[in-house]
Amino acid sequence: MDRIKALRDAALNKKNELDGFLIFNEHNQYYFAGVSGTACLLVPEDGEGIVYVYGVNYEQAKADAKGFRVELIRRGENLTTKIAGKIKASKMKRLALDSITHDGYKALAKEFRGKSKIKTRADLVWELRSVKDENERELMTKAGELTVAGMKAGYECIRPGMREIEVAAQIEYAMRSHGSWGTAFETSVASGTHSAYPHGGCTEKQIRKGDLVVIDIGAKYQHYCSDMTRTLAIGTASPKQVKLHKIVFEAYKNALQTIDAGVDAKEVDSAARGTIEKTGYGECFVHGLGHGVGLEVHEYPVLNSVSKDRLCVGNVVTNEPGIYLTGFGGLRIEDSVLVEKRPVKLTDGLYSLEPEN
Amino acid sequence: MDRIKALRDAALNKKNELDGFLIFNEHNQYYFAGVSGTACLLVPEDGEGIVYVYGVNYEQAKADAKGFRVELIRRGENLTTKIAGKIKASKMKRLALDSITHDGYKALAKEFRGKSKIKTRADLVWELRSVKDENERELMTKAGELTVAGMKAGYECIRPGMREIEVAAQIEYAMRSHGSWGTAFETSVASGTHSAYPHGGCTEKQIRKGDLVVIDIGAKYQHYCSDMTRTLAIGTASPKQVKLHKIVFEAYKNALQTIDAGVDAKEVDSAARGTIEKTGYGECFVHGLGHGVGLEVHEYPVLNSVSKDRLCVGNVVTNEPGIYLTGFGGLRIEDSVLVEKRPVKLTDGLYSLEPEN
Repeated sequence: MDRIKALRDAALNKKNELDGFLIFNEHNQYYFAGVSGTACLLVPEDGEGIVYVYGVNYEQAKADAKGFRVELIRRGENLTTKIAGKIKASKMKRLALDSITHDGYKALAKEFRGKSKIKTRADLVWELRSVKDENERELMTKAGELTVAGMKAGYECIRPGMREIEVAAQIEYAMRSHGSWGTAFETSVASGTHSAYPHGGCTEKQIRKGDLVVIDIGAKYQHYCSDMTRTLAIGTASPKQVKLHKIVFEAYKNALQTIDAGVDAKEVDSAARGTIEKTGYGECFVHGLGHGVGLEVHEYPVLNSVSKDRLCVGNVVTNEPGIYLTGFGGLRIEDSVLVEKRPVKLTDGLYSLEPEN
Repeated sequence: MDRIKALRDAALNKKNELDGFLIFNEHNQYYFAGVSGTACLLVPEDGEGIVYVYGVNYEQAKADAKGFRVELIRRGENLTTKIAGKIKASKMKRLALDSITHDGYKALAKEFRGKSKIKTRADLVWELRSVKDENERELMTKAGELTVAGMKAGYECIRPGMREIEVAAQIEYAMRSHGSWGTAFETSVASGTHSAYPHGGCTEKQIRKGDLVVIDIGAKYQHYCSDMTRTLAIGTASPKQVKLHKIVFEAYKNALQTIDAGVDAKEVDSAARGTIEKTGYGECFVHGLGHGVGLEVHEYPVLNSVSKDRLCVGNVVTNEPGIYLTGFGGLRIEDSVLVEKRPVKLTDGLYSLEPEN
C-alpha cells in the first residue's frame, strides 16, 4: 500500500489534476498489486483500486492481489468498455495511464467520447520504480548472488571446442540450482568475432582457442532481475586482448568511483567514456554506460552521454563499459550496483581475463 | 525476399492503397530482414527496404540483414525524425505499420503534419507469420524435439521433496544440452494447489506426494518457439485425479481429430470444450483451447470459442485443454501441432499421469 500511496502522492495530487491512474504494463501491475497475468489496474484518487483480470488468471489474482478488489472480465465482455463504464460511473474526468498501444488508446478515447481525458504518464511510475525499497534491495542482492554463481560455473566449464549454448546450459543450470526463478534476459555467450556484437546472444558456434568470449547473464529472484558481464580469453590472452581488457576495466573502475547520490548519470557515463576515449578507442564504445535494473532488466535511470537523470539512493544501475572491434572481438565488464552512501556491488568478482591462470 | 514480396502483395497493392510499411515489432523485423536488435524497418512499395539501427547493434545488423540497406541512427539523431524525413523525401502518402505505442504514433503524426497518413495493420503481418514455410517447419520440428527432451528430463527427476525450481533446472539443462537456444517462455512447474493456476510459474515450493504437477515448457531453436504441457501425479494418483486426467486427455484427442485445413478454429475449441462440458467441468476449463506458435509463443490463429480464424496448411497451433479446481489442483495436456494433410504433432508422448508406473 506504500506504493499506491506514493503513486497517489506523485500523480493524483492537485498539481497534476488527475483523478485516476490506469496501469497496463505487467511489471507495473506486479509492482503495485503483487499480481501477474492481469489485464489492467485502476487506481482512483481515493478508495479501493481494482484489478481487472480474465478468467484464466482470476483465481490466482484473487489469491495474490494486495489491497485491490479483483474484477473478472467475463467471456464476451470487453476490457475497454468495462473500464470506461467504471470511470464514467465514478465521474472521473482526468486520467493518466502508464503505457498503451495506439489502437488501445483509440478504443479507450472512443468509449469516453470526450467526457474523460487521458494522457500517458509512464514517467511517474518509472520514477517510483527506480528507487528500490528495503525488500527490493534484499531480493536484488539475492539475484546478484545467483548471477555470480552462474558466472563462476561458466568460468569453470568453458574450454575450446564447447559450443556457446553448452556454456549457457551450465550457467543457467547453476543459477537455477542455487535458487534462481529464471533468467532476467536471454543468456549471452558470444565468442570470437561474435563477441564484437554487444548483443551477440549464443548459438551453436564452437568456442576456439584465442577467442574472446563475452558472457552477459542475469538470474531472477522473485521477479527481480540482475545483470552481469565478464569477458574471458580462451587460452593465453594476446597482448592486444590484455591491453583492451585493461582499458575496459579502468573505465569500469573510474565509473564506479563516480557513482553516488546526487551525481548526474551522464557524469558516470563520462568517467568511463573519457577513459576509453583517451586511448583512442572512443568510437568502439558503441553504447551507453548503463541502465537501471529491477523488475525489468532495463529501467531508469539511464546512464549515457545525453541522460538527464540524476542518481539517488536506492537506484540499482549497471556499469558496463565495452570496446568492440569488428572482425577481432569485443570486451565488456558489467556489474549491477546499488546507489547507497557508498556504491554497493550486487555482482562482484571474476575480473580476470584469463581465469585459468 | 519471398516474405517481403508476400508483404507487398498483401499490403502494398492497389486495393489497400498503401505505398510503404513500417515494421516496429522486433519479431517482425527478424521475420522480414533476419535481424535482431534493430529499431525499425521501412518497406516501400518498390525498391530497397531500409533497416534503421542504433550504434550498439549496427555492425551485427550489417552482417545479418538480408535484402535491406542498413542505416545507422547516429548519436543525437531521432529515429522518428529520420524515418519521417525519408518518407517525406520519397513522397510516400499512405503508410501502414505493424504496431506502435500511442506516444510513438503521436510523434510520427506530428512529423508528418497531415502530409502522410498512417494506420496500423498488424493483421496483415500476423497473417503471413501464421503460415510457416518449409524452413520454419524444420526449425519448429527441432524446437519440438528439444522440448520433449526437456519434458523427459522433468519426468525422470521429479520426486517428493524437490522444489519446483529444481525440476525447472533439470528441464532447462536438458533442453539446452540437446541444443536449445533458450526458452520460449518462463518454464512453469506448478505443484499442488498452484497447479490450479493455469499460469502458475515455478517457485521454491516443495513438491509433495499426492500433488498434481503441471509442467508447461518450451524450447527455442534459432528464434522459433515450441510449447508443451503435461500433468503428473506424484506417487499413486487418486481416483479423482485419474478421472480428471482421462477427461482432459479425451478432450485433447477430440480436438486433435478436428484439426484440419479449412476448419474454423472455434470448432476445434468446441470439440475439446464439449467433451469437458459433458462431464460437468465446463466452468473449470477457464481458457481458450490454444494459439498459434512461431517466432513468438503466442501468435495467430487463436483457438477459442469466439475466434473468427480458420485453420490452414502451415499453421502451427497448440491444443491445450485443461481443468482447474481451486484448492485441489489442475490438469492440462498440450502439444504443438502443425496443420498439414493430417495434423503433425511437433511435441508428442509422455501422456501418462503416473510416469513411475
